[in-house]
Amino acid sequence: MITVEQATAHLLDLVDPLSAEDVGLRHAAGRVLAQAVQARHDQPPFDASAMDGYAVSSAKPAPGDIFRVIGESAAGRPFSAPVTEGEAVRIFTGAIAPEGTKTVVIQEDVSRDGDRITLSGNLGSGSNIRPAAGDFAKGEAFAAPRRLGSRDIALLAAMGHGTLPVVRRPTVAILMTGDELRNPGEALDPGQITASNGYGLAAMLEAEGAEVRLLPLARDTVQSLAMALRLAGGADLVITIGGASVGDHDLVAQVAGDAGLDLAFHKVAMRPGKPLLAGRLGEQAFVGLPGNPVSAMVCGVIFILPMLRKMLGLAPDPVTRLMPLGAPLTANGPRQHYMRARVEAGACRAVTSQDSALLSRLASADCLIVRPPNDPSRETGFLQAVIDLPD
Amino acid sequence: MITVEQATAHLLDLVDPLSAEDVGLRHAAGRVLAQAVQARHDQPPFDASAMDGYAVSSAKPAPGDIFRVIGESAAGRPFSAPVTEGEAVRIFTGAIAPEGTKTVVIQEDVSRDGDRITLSGNLGSGSNIRPAAGDFAKGEAFAAPRRLGSRDIALLAAMGHGTLPVVRRPTVAILMTGDELRNPGEALDPGQITASNGYGLAAMLEAEGAEVRLLPLARDTVQSLAMALRLAGGADLVITIGGASVGDHDLVAQVAGDAGLDLAFHKVAMRPGKPLLAGRLGEQAFVGLPGNPVSAMVCGVIFILPMLRKMLGLAPDPVTRLMPLGAPLTANGPRQHYMRARVEAGACRAVTSQDSALLSRLASADCLIVRPPNDPSRETGFLQAVIDLPD
Repeated sequence: MITVEQATAHLLDLVDPLSAEDVGLRHAAGRVLAQAVQARHDQPPFDASAMDGYAVSSAKPAPGDIFRVIGESAAGRPFSAPVTEGEAVRIFTGAIAPEGTKTVVIQEDVSRDGDRITLSGNLGSGSNIRPAAGDFAKGEAFAAPRRLGSRDIALLAAMGHGTLPVVRRPTVAILMTGDELRNPGEALDPGQITASNGYGLAAMLEAEGAEVRLLPLARDTVQSLAMALRLAGGADLVITIGGASVGDHDLVAQVAGDAGLDLAFHKVAMRPGKPLLAGRLGEQAFVGLPGNPVSAMVCGVIFILPMLRKMLGLAPDPVTRLMPLGAPLTANGPRQHYMRARVEAGACRAVTSQDSALLSRLASADCLIVRPPNDPSRETGFLQAVIDLPD
Repeated sequence: MITVEQATAHLLDLVDPLSAEDVGLRHAAGRVLAQAVQARHDQPPFDASAMDGYAVSSAKPAPGDIFRVIGESAAGRPFSAPVTEGEAVRIFTGAIAPEGTKTVVIQEDVSRDGDRITLSGNLGSGSNIRPAAGDFAKGEAFAAPRRLGSRDIALLAAMGHGTLPVVRRPTVAILMTGDELRNPGEALDPGQITASNGYGLAAMLEAEGAEVRLLPLARDTVQSLAMALRLAGGADLVITIGGASVGDHDLVAQVAGDAGLDLAFHKVAMRPGKPLLAGRLGEQAFVGLPGNPVSAMVCGVIFILPMLRKMLGLAPDPVTRLMPLGAPLTANGPRQHYMRARVEAGACRAVTSQDSALLSRLASADCLIVRPPNDPSRETGFLQAVIDLPD
């Protein structure tokens, strides 16, 4: 048996960061920026009015001051002459503060008569002018790698980028194997069950940024498995689910080996999810996950998402945080245990049954409690390491 | 001026929950389940072996017990005859525990000689049989509405659903208006800026489940705005950005009114984002957001995402949680203030400049500190209400 850390290191060795591709800004959200980009101009590109009002040359205008209005500066339609003492320019939010102006007096503090304005009201102390480059300066870097959210998209748009270099999506082929499997919606004969974990894993990996091909169900025959593996051609990562334990009917290792894959079989000291196949064929990484639904999904969180993140150029390891236990835990056995747990009132509590076949318990869980091998019993309130489950 | 609560109530009144549509399971992740669905069979559908080994009729097999192997039960290939005392069936994980069997002895605890097995080892106390319906029973409900995550998908697959009724995606048309705007990547002439908030808002709304049409930039003319508004036809929600304040160049209200929209102009007592247009034309909801980039994005979080959630059948209001302040706050003015803030070491701290034009500060923020009108100054450690910003 190898440890989870050893298994993770081995799996991460199977993949490399992927190349970049350019995508339009409208398709960049959720993608990982591949390299730092620079602002193409100052933002604002000029001293800009923050209000609707009158731009004047005085830095300290006072109630009663009188100015002559000599023109108008609107957003996109600047006033191009300089403004000198005693002069004002009608101005709107976002417009260039004309050369020589130091303050924008808001229109509520002005009474206008023809081309003459008189200041009144309780003039504020601010200039109401946003200085050029106050948000960012031309050449300022937006750092990479970074998964782009909506606010990043707004900022990168403002920086002048219509397209962005993002990391290519990892392509993943998922193969569920087993004579007992039927597709969701198909009627079940005795002994049959509905294939489920591939659907869940596909959704999990797609949410992380992968492009997933869910292959047709394979039967437990050399021929069926061999055909299915050929359908996985071209994927960066091939995942089989089921057939990775030591049963007489577990043919995946044999068929994958026949296909030339340099495979290693590992028993990982973890619950759920002990058996794991892993190897490499040329550019393809290959991982065989156990068939129990919960095992497959937990292995997805612990092993497969980190592989995707490495391919995407992101920090691979799952983020662990500490949270008080809402109920005690008995001592753990010799394997690292990822217990399905719910969070309530800021504390986590393991769900009652940890059987690795129970998808209903997994679906209702919020996080995985991470228990090292031989962890002693823990009391309520103990600060427990947990990994948040992805939606 | 109306309060944020009044504005929210008014905006939510403009939209209704949308109808449902059936989608394949592979396209259901991230969608909102429209109505509860039931499990189509028990899971497991039968008493199933949890291990590879031998199924025997004894509930308490002991070391030294001898059984005669009369057949094999594999996943998908059941053994159909009953098993009586003294008999055993070779069995594999996931296979039906044949009629009459009460325990699966794992293969490591068995020595086999022809069709005779002798138990040995330290037999565990468990049956190694997963009872039928142990995960869920036929007819058990999966509740709606619920946004479906990957674990939900796995569970719904196991429940036998190849397609699911989900709420139709809200369609949103976004129109950025302003003579000063150029698309990202286009060169800027004096007085021009790059359009950004529509791109950020589109990404934000898409992440919540909307289908967004970003319309061509409109100029500040009646003709240009009127044409752009016609391009918004058919959308559930039309959003304009910019042109909603009181400046001479703000034509959106006029043009929308000419188009027959029953519009109301509101000054909302909030920072950032005071001006707001809202109304309805037949089936379409219409909202005009302020043009400052940060205002538009914050209004997206506070007003538009709740509208989408109502259309999706979800609880509309932003989730507020309490978090200690990492730095003091001065007293708030008469408007509700959504301060951009960062979270570090479990405490939140307002970013230094709260100017509503600074996208760089918004992009680096984690949450919005929600300050009610006239909130007094607050000390470090005060439990502050915050709204997490969407990515």
